[in-house]
Parts: sequence; C-alpha cells; structure tokens
Amino acid sequence: MEITELARQVIAGNRRALARAITLVESVRSDHREQATALMEEIGRSGRQALRLGLSGTPGVGKSTFIESFGMMLIREGLKVAVLAVDPSSSRSGGSILGDKTRMEYLSREKNAFIRPSPSRSELGGVARRTREAVALCEAAGYDLILIETVGVGQSETVVAEMSDVFLLLLAPAGGDELQGVKRGIMEMADIILVNKADGDLKAAAQRTRADYAGALRLLRKRPQDPEGFPKAMTVSALEEKGLATAWQEMQALVAWRRENGFFDRRRAEQAEYWFGQEIRYGLLGQLEREPYKSLIGTLAAKVAAGESTPGNAAAEVLRALRQDAG
Amino acid sequence: MEITELARQVIAGNRRALARAITLVESVRSDHREQATALMEEIGRSGRQALRLGLSGTPGVGKSTFIESFGMMLIREGLKVAVLAVDPSSSRSGGSILGDKTRMEYLSREKNAFIRPSPSRSELGGVARRTREAVALCEAAGYDLILIETVGVGQSETVVAEMSDVFLLLLAPAGGDELQGVKRGIMEMADIILVNKADGDLKAAAQRTRADYAGALRLLRKRPQDPEGFPKAMTVSALEEKGLATAWQEMQALVAWRRENGFFDRRRAEQAEYWFGQEIRYGLLGQLEREPYKSLIGTLAAKVAAGESTPGNAAAEVLRALRQDAG
Repeated sequence: MEITELARQVIAGNRRALARAITLVESVRSDHREQATALMEEIGRSGRQALRLGLSGTPGVGKSTFIESFGMMLIREGLKVAVLAVDPSSSRSGGSILGDKTRMEYLSREKNAFIRPSPSRSELGGVARRTREAVALCEAAGYDLILIETVGVGQSETVVAEMSDVFLLLLAPAGGDELQGVKRGIMEMADIILVNKADGDLKAAAQRTRADYAGALRLLRKRPQDPEGFPKAMTVSALEEKGLATAWQEMQALVAWRRENGFFDRRRAEQAEYWFGQEIRYGLLGQLEREPYKSLIGTLAAKVAAGESTPGNAAAEVLRALRQDAG
Repeated sequence: MEITELARQVIAGNRRALARAITLVESVRSDHREQATALMEEIGRSGRQALRLGLSGTPGVGKSTFIESFGMMLIREGLKVAVLAVDPSSSRSGGSILGDKTRMEYLSREKNAFIRPSPSRSELGGVARRTREAVALCEAAGYDLILIETVGVGQSETVVAEMSDVFLLLLAPAGGDELQGVKRGIMEMADIILVNKADGDLKAAAQRTRADYAGALRLLRKRPQDPEGFPKAMTVSALEEKGLATAWQEMQALVAWRRENGFFDRRRAEQAEYWFGQEIRYGLLGQLEREPYKSLIGTLAAKVAAGESTPGNAAAEVLRALRQDAG
C-alpha cells in the first residue's frame, strides 16, 4: 500500500490500517524507517489532539484491572480509547501486561478501544521513539484519550512522563514503612496518585496509604503547573469500579486549569524539545552499538584494561574511526 | 621546550616542569592537546604508581584543615604528597578551596608537597580528563600519595571515586535527622567515612554521628572489594590532629588487603575501561556544544517547540549535518 493511502485510512479511523502503521514505525529496517518518516509527515497534518494519560504501576497493583475498568467507563461516556505500553524489558521478562489482552477481556472487544502491547525490542531509545509515533498515529486516528502504561523498569517512567499530559501513579495499599519503596523522583513526576484496591479487607489500609502519600506530596516543592490541591492522592477500587468517575473528574479539572493557564501547550512544547535532544543523543550513541564499532570498542576495552593503551588514546581511535566512515 | 625534555624533567621530580606539564594538559587548544597526548605517552613509561586517595566533603566540614593536617603527617613520615581538585563549578562559585592555598599554610610551603587548584573550565568531561592526566603526571614525578578532592557538586563524586583507589567521605558532626543529607549513592561509594571536628564541644556529637553512619553502612549491601569491617566510619579532629594516624593505618590495611586479593589491580582496570567509555561519550556529545551545531540545534529546538518540525525530523537534520562535516 502507498504511504499516502495508509495515512488516509489511519485518519479515516480504520483499525487495521492503524495497527499496520504502528507495525511500520516499530520496524528497524532502514527502508521501513524511511516510509515511517513519510507516514509521520502525512498524518501530522490531521490536526487532531488526544489527551495523553501516563500510567505507572509495578506488578501486583492491579494495573490491568484498572485499565479495564477505567477504559470501559470512558467508552460508556462515548470516548475512543487507545492503550499503549512502554516496557523496555518486555523481551526479557516475557512481555508487558498488555501482551496478555485477555486480562482486559471487555475492553479488548470494544470497537472504540485500541490496545497495543509493547514492541519486543528492549532498547529504551527505540521503544520511546516508537511509542511517540504510535501516540501520534492514535491521535490522527481520532482517539480521544491515549493511556500510556509502564511497569516502571529503569528509566521508563521518565519516558512515559515526558510524553504525557497527566501522569498517574497507581499503588497498592501498604504499611507506612513501605512508603519509601516509591522513589522520590517518581513521586515528583506524579500529578495524581491512585491507591487501588480500596475494597473489602484492604479498604482501611488503602485509606491510610492514601493519607500517607497525601502527606508526602505536601512536602514536595510546589510546581507552577499545579492548581491548588495538586498533586493529589486518591483511593480507587478498579475491581468494584469505585472512585474512577471522581478520579476522571479530577484529571479533567487539572487539564482544564492547565489549558486555561497556558501550561498545557507549554508542557507539550517542552516535551518536544526534550525528545529532540534525546533523539540526537540516541542517534550519536547508538552508533556505538553497531558494527564495526562495537567490535572495535570491545577489542580496545580489553587493551585498556590490560594497561596496553590509555583510555584517552583508545577513545581517540574510536572517534577517528567514526569520523572517517561518516564521510 | 621539547616534549621529550619536559617529560624527562617531570620524571626527574622538577616541580616547575610538573606545573608546566599540568598547564599543558589543561589547555583546550588543539596544538596543545596534541603535545599533551605525546607527553602522556612519554611519561606512561615511568612505571611508577602512587596511592590515589579520593576525598569528598561539602563546604564547612573542614576539608582544607583536614588536608593540611593529614598531608603534614604524611610529609613527616617521609612521603611525597600531591593534592589535586575536581570542581566542575569552580568557574562559577569562585574557585575550589585549593584556589586559596593560604588555607593550607604549612603544606603549601613543603618541598615534598605539590598543590594544584582545579582548572577554571567548568565542563565536567574536560575537568575529569585533565585530572586523570594530572594524576598520571604526579605519579611519574614520584609522588607517593595523591589526594584528589572534591566539594561534591553534581556528578563530581563519581568522577573522583572512579579515579581513586580509596574513597574517603569527610563529614561534620550532625543531629541524627541530618543523616539523610548524604545521598545514598555517595555513601555506597565511600570506603571510609571520617567524621571531623571530634574536638571540644562537638566531640560527643561527632561520636554520635559516627555511630549513626556506622549503623547506616551496615545496612548497605556487602561489596566483594571490602575486607571484614569495611566500609568503616571513624572520628577525627583535623584541628587537634587526632585520629589521623589511625585513619591512615586503616587506609593502608584496606589497600594491603585489596592488593593481596587482586581487587586493587582489578579496580584500576575497571576504572580504565570506565574512562574509555566516558571519553567516547564526551567526544561524541561534545560536538553538540560547538559551532555550527550549537546554533543549528538552537534554531531547530525553537522550531520543534513551535510545532513547525517534529523532534525526530529535526534530530535527523542535526545528525546529517554532523555526518557530512565529519568526512
């Protein structure tokens, strides 16, 4: 199929075309890469904009149940929902939760829902680029809300936060001691903390955990992009579908305030600049992972370790090889 | 002066030649850089090896008093002592403590001591390379012990730890609550924590602080390069010259154990490999700070922020420009 035709079908809302377009942007083959660049230029003209929600939560917090319940609620409100995953470790750990669509049994059957597991490549730079392009494709295809989820391995929360309008942190009820388990850096990225499993035996523990996190959030420095009362900690029960509507109202209120006060557009502009810088870094440092440089570096590293060459002279040799081949 | 002659004089222990050689390796002029590379190859053949002691401590912990007292003790033992600084922020903050030699009044007058302030360039990659080369020059000049100090701004502790055989963390007495002020990552790098100012009114507080840190160190994961009892927390009084001899004995015991068990040489080999990788990264990313790329990146970043170009396409333009010019 011609790229122009593929773009047209994506914009027309054809799900198979969207899936095919995402497969194209995931490919690392250089001819596919060129087609993907052309495709991204075509769909860039759609002018559509979705709300991008980032969601981070470690295994066991009930992330797939949350996506299922929250997604179904949005579908019932008449919205089109896409779910994407950033999981740089998926090739090793056996796939992100989205690899197993059956865990989102109802959502995966909805015609207004589009669920796409994380690609199998484990290199963070590649996953980040693919996900940004998949987000843009889903926007062009007319989805209203894009949920970008991660299990939070390594730097993946930063990747997701840097492509989201609102960043949600999903947690399970815990004892007060375990509060430190969440890294400070991740707390500082969160717009809304959702303590899940506020049902049955765990309800009281969830409320205590929420209060603990609310206290911790108050200790963080105030960010200009937050209205009064944000960042916020709330309880939800994905299983009993409780608190989800309230959480969604809070997200919408936050987004409305940020739009009115210029922070929404400013954040998107900053994110674009961030990814520009990252793409340059990935491009430069990515050369080192490819042959013949990878082998050259391996050989020289052994010499350096053995004291047969200095770090500076060996590095100069690598840089010289990169420069000569470039021309 | 010919580079061969300069190298000969450095190896002969001529202090002025050493100072001049360090000035040469600090220079960023490309012809100087070539001479510096030749010089480093010449002096690499001296075969001498000094003990490299890293020392980190924030302003106010008494670092210059410690270096003065500890250095003078070593001089009295007949050792030759060099003191170098890694302070990437020195150009902004008005110079490292070593810029003010008068604060090490006695040490700076000793013929067996060599003190060199941090260079004024504030770029961490440049400071790191210059310091590694200055360390090698001081080793070739016959110094027995090289103290590499940093105030611990940003990544500078990592830089110092990655070029030291033993890493010391100097602290002041504090209340138990303040223990968290030391970042976990820095604690994990320390071989010996020295709580200074264990004198007068602060003696009891220093002992309490030492006990707190000893407890915190026990919670860290055991490292293979540590004998029983290390890492260790001790008290010293640089002012009253107390505890310094004991601290020095502990350092020597640690080094002797690591030499016997192969960790000393292994660590130096790992450090050389680390700097090899860093030099390649600095070399590649450093291009982005130079013209015409710096201006190109600035122009494109504005376009990206305004939505006139995508991060991927703008980055591709920068990478293309780098490739074309390289040939």
